[in-house]
Amino acid sequence: MSPSLLSPLLRRHLVFTSLHRATPTTKRAFHITPSIMSEKLKPAARVAGRRQDVWSIINEAASASPIQPIVNMGQGFFGYNPPDFILSAAKSALDRVECNQYSPTKGRPRLLKALADAYSPFWGRQLDPNSEITVTTGANEGMLSAFMAFIEPGDEVIVFEPFFDQYISNIEMPGGKIVYVPMHPPKEGAVKTLSAGEWSVDFDELERAITPRTKMIVLNTPHNPVGKVFSRAELEKIAELCLKHKIIILSDEVYDRLFYTDFTRIATLSPEVEKITLTVGSAGKNFYATGWRVGWLIGPAELIQYVSAAHTRICYSSVSPLQEACAIGFEQADSHNFWQQCIKDMTAKMERFTAVFDELGIPYSKPEGGYFVMANFNKVQLPGGYKFPAHVEERPRDFKLAWFLIQELGVAAIPPSEFYTEENAAIVEDYLRFAVCKPDSVLEDAKERLRGLKKYLRE
Amino acid sequence: MSPSLLSPLLRRHLVFTSLHRATPTTKRAFHITPSIMSEKLKPAARVAGRRQDVWSIINEAASASPIQPIVNMGQGFFGYNPPDFILSAAKSALDRVECNQYSPTKGRPRLLKALADAYSPFWGRQLDPNSEITVTTGANEGMLSAFMAFIEPGDEVIVFEPFFDQYISNIEMPGGKIVYVPMHPPKEGAVKTLSAGEWSVDFDELERAITPRTKMIVLNTPHNPVGKVFSRAELEKIAELCLKHKIIILSDEVYDRLFYTDFTRIATLSPEVEKITLTVGSAGKNFYATGWRVGWLIGPAELIQYVSAAHTRICYSSVSPLQEACAIGFEQADSHNFWQQCIKDMTAKMERFTAVFDELGIPYSKPEGGYFVMANFNKVQLPGGYKFPAHVEERPRDFKLAWFLIQELGVAAIPPSEFYTEENAAIVEDYLRFAVCKPDSVLEDAKERLRGLKKYLRE
Repeated sequence: MSPSLLSPLLRRHLVFTSLHRATPTTKRAFHITPSIMSEKLKPAARVAGRRQDVWSIINEAASASPIQPIVNMGQGFFGYNPPDFILSAAKSALDRVECNQYSPTKGRPRLLKALADAYSPFWGRQLDPNSEITVTTGANEGMLSAFMAFIEPGDEVIVFEPFFDQYISNIEMPGGKIVYVPMHPPKEGAVKTLSAGEWSVDFDELERAITPRTKMIVLNTPHNPVGKVFSRAELEKIAELCLKHKIIILSDEVYDRLFYTDFTRIATLSPEVEKITLTVGSAGKNFYATGWRVGWLIGPAELIQYVSAAHTRICYSSVSPLQEACAIGFEQADSHNFWQQCIKDMTAKMERFTAVFDELGIPYSKPEGGYFVMANFNKVQLPGGYKFPAHVEERPRDFKLAWFLIQELGVAAIPPSEFYTEENAAIVEDYLRFAVCKPDSVLEDAKERLRGLKKYLRE
Repeated sequence: MSPSLLSPLLRRHLVFTSLHRATPTTKRAFHITPSIMSEKLKPAARVAGRRQDVWSIINEAASASPIQPIVNMGQGFFGYNPPDFILSAAKSALDRVECNQYSPTKGRPRLLKALADAYSPFWGRQLDPNSEITVTTGANEGMLSAFMAFIEPGDEVIVFEPFFDQYISNIEMPGGKIVYVPMHPPKEGAVKTLSAGEWSVDFDELERAITPRTKMIVLNTPHNPVGKVFSRAELEKIAELCLKHKIIILSDEVYDRLFYTDFTRIATLSPEVEKITLTVGSAGKNFYATGWRVGWLIGPAELIQYVSAAHTRICYSSVSPLQEACAIGFEQADSHNFWQQCIKDMTAKMERFTAVFDELGIPYSKPEGGYFVMANFNKVQLPGGYKFPAHVEERPRDFKLAWFLIQELGVAAIPPSEFYTEENAAIVEDYLRFAVCKPDSVLEDAKERLRGLKKYLRE
C-alpha cells in the first residue's frame, strides 16, 4: 500500500515513527519494530508455550509412518454414524426456522424435558428440566462452565490420574490449582488380564490431598482411559470425603450408556450427595456423534444456575438443530431399544478386538465401561538402538511403544502417560490405550497388524 | 434414603457429624448445615449476582403483556430459514461419518479453505487457511477465545458504547478491565432521520482512554445496534492509534455481508494494520442461522495460533456437520448470487419497516449495515402516572419506552441503554432498537401496531 492511500493522520504518524526510529527509508517506516511489537502482542500465559500434546505427536507419527494408511485406534471418535432415527431428526430440524436460530442459553425446552425424562428414573425422582439441567456445547465446555462457575484463583481441584487432558486447561483457565491423585493399576497388570475395576484409588492418599482450599473433585466413571466403573463402595467413600470437607463433585459420566457391570451414578447415592454433585453427560458419546457438540450438566438448582450463567458467558447458546435431534434421540431411544443395542454392540467390538491380545498373551484391563481398552506391553521388547525422534525419546516408554507401533505395524494407539503428571508417569509406561469404537473391519485390520508384535515378545 | 443403604464408612461419618453437631435426631444428621454448605458451594465472582439483563426483562414483559402474541422485533434472530443450498449441504453432511465426528480443533479443512477463498479477494492476497484462519463455536466464543488468548488480569480493553453485551463478560473472564468510549448520536437525532454514519467517535476521547495497559480494542462494523459502518477515514484514525500504541484490534464484522454503503475491513487498510488485527466472522449472521454456532477469526498467524489454542481449551472443536455445510455455503454463495440477494432483501425489509417511522414522524438512524434500526422516541409522551414495575422504573427512559410498547402496542424492541455504562446511558434514553430480519408479514404486523403510537406523539 502506498503512503498516499493513507489518511493524513496515519501518514503523519508513520513519518513521525520513522523519524524517531531514525530509519532512513520510507519503506522501513511501514515496519513495526518486531521486538516492541512482539512484546505488546504477546499471548496470555494460559495459552503460551506448552509441550507438544499427545494428539499432535501421534498424528505426526502417523503421517511419518512408512505404512499407509495407518489403522487409527487412537482418538475416541466413532467410525460409524449415529442411528438413522437421530439423523432423520436432525434433518427434519434443519427444515424448521426456529431450530436454526438461537436456542435459549440453558438449552432447548424439548431437549431439557427429554433429558429430565431420561434421567429421572436413575435419580429416583422427577428432575426439573428448568432448573436442574443445563445444556452445554459438548461435555467439554460443560465442564469448563462448571469450573468457571465455582473456581476462584487459588481454589484447588482434585483430579485422578490418568485424567482426560482437557480437564487441566479447563481448571487452569479460572485460576484453579490441580491436585493430582493417581489411580494404581493392578499389581499383576503386566502379567495377567484383569478387570479394569482392579485399578484402584488409595483413599488415604485421596484424603491427604484435601486441603481447606479444595473446592471440587473431578470423577470420571466409566473411566477414560482405564475402562473402570467405580463401584458403589468406592463412590460412597469419595462421597463421604466430599460431604465431610464440603467439596463439589463434578462427575464426568459421558460414557454413561456404555457399562458392562453395575453402574452407579454418584449423584444418586443419597439426597445429600446429590446436593453437592454435578453430573456431566454427552450426546456425542451417547449417540455416536462426537462432532455434534451437545452436552449437559445435571445437578441441584443452586449449583446449576451458576453453570448456566458461566455457559452463557462462554458460548451464549449451543447448536440448535442438533439439540433438537438429541431431544428426539432421547425421546425415541427406548422404542428403538437403542441403549441396550449400544451395550451389546460395544461389548462385541471389545471382545472382537481384545481377542488379539489374548492370542498374543498381552494382558489388558478388561473394560467395565466405555470404549477404550488399556493393554500392557511390558512383554514387548523394543529393538536395541531403535531410533526415536527427540520429542519421543525424552518421553516415557509408552510414547516409544506408540511410536514403534505406528512405524513398524501401522497401528495408532495413545500413550496414557500423557494423562499422568511427570511424577507419576512411570505408573503407566507399559500401557497403550486403544479405542474400539470403530467398524469391525478396522478392528480386524488392527488385529492382523498387531499380530506382527509376536517377534518382539519376551517370553 | 435410609442409613442402612449407606456404606459403613459413610454411616460412620454421618453419625460422627451428627454427634459433633449435637443434633439429636438421625434425620438432622443427613442435612448439611446450610450456612457452611452455601459458603463452600458459593459461585465464583465472575458468575455471581448481576442485575437482570435486558433479554430476560423484555421476555418477561412480553409474557406479561395483555396483547398476545407479541410481535417480537427484539432479539436479532432471523424469522426465516437459511437458503436451500446450505440446508441441503447440512443434510448431506449428516450422512457422512466423518462429518458427525470431531473436527480438527482449528476447523474443518474444507471450511478453512472456503473461508480463505472467500476472504482473500478482500485482503488482496491469498490467505493461508492453515495458519491465518481459525474456526470457533460462533463468533461469540471466537471473541472469548481472542480475549483468553491475549488478556492477562489487569490488561485493558477499549470498548465503544453501545456495545454487544457479551463483550463485557468475555473480557472480564480472563481478568481484563474494560475502558469505555461512548459513541455519540447525531445532535439532531431526536428531530431528524439521519444516516447511522452520523453516530460519531470523539477521537480525542478515544486517545485519552489509552494507557500503557491497553492491550486490545474492540471494533464492531457494521455496528450493532447503531447500524453504522465505520468510514475508511474513521478506521484509519483508529488504526493509527493502535499502531502507535501497539494495541490489538479485534474487529467484530459479523454483519460483513450486509452493508448499504462502502464497507472497509480495517485489517485491509495496510499490511501493518493487518499484523495487529483479528477479524471476526459468523456463519450464523451470514447464512441466516444464528443457532448454528459456527464463527471464525482471520488474522496474522502469530496471533491466530493463540486464538486457536484458547479455543481448543474452551470448546475443543466446533460442530462438524454444520461446519461442512458452511464450507459449501461459501463455495456456492456466488453461483447463487447469495451475497447480493442478502443485501437486496435486507434493504427491502429495512425500507418496508422504517416507512412506519416516516409516516409517524419518528426519526431514526438510517442503517448503513446490519439488520438493526435505532429509532428515536423523544416525541413519545409516556402517560403521566403510568405504572412500571420497580426493575423498569429504576432504569432509563428507553426501558420504560420498551415496556410501554410491549404492554400497550404488543411490539417488543430492545432498550439500548443496556449497552452503555450507567454513566453514559442517558445518551440513548430516547432510542429503541428494532431487528428487521423478520418475515415481511411480521414487519407489517409491527407497523400496524406501531401506528397506535400516534396518540402519544408530542407535536
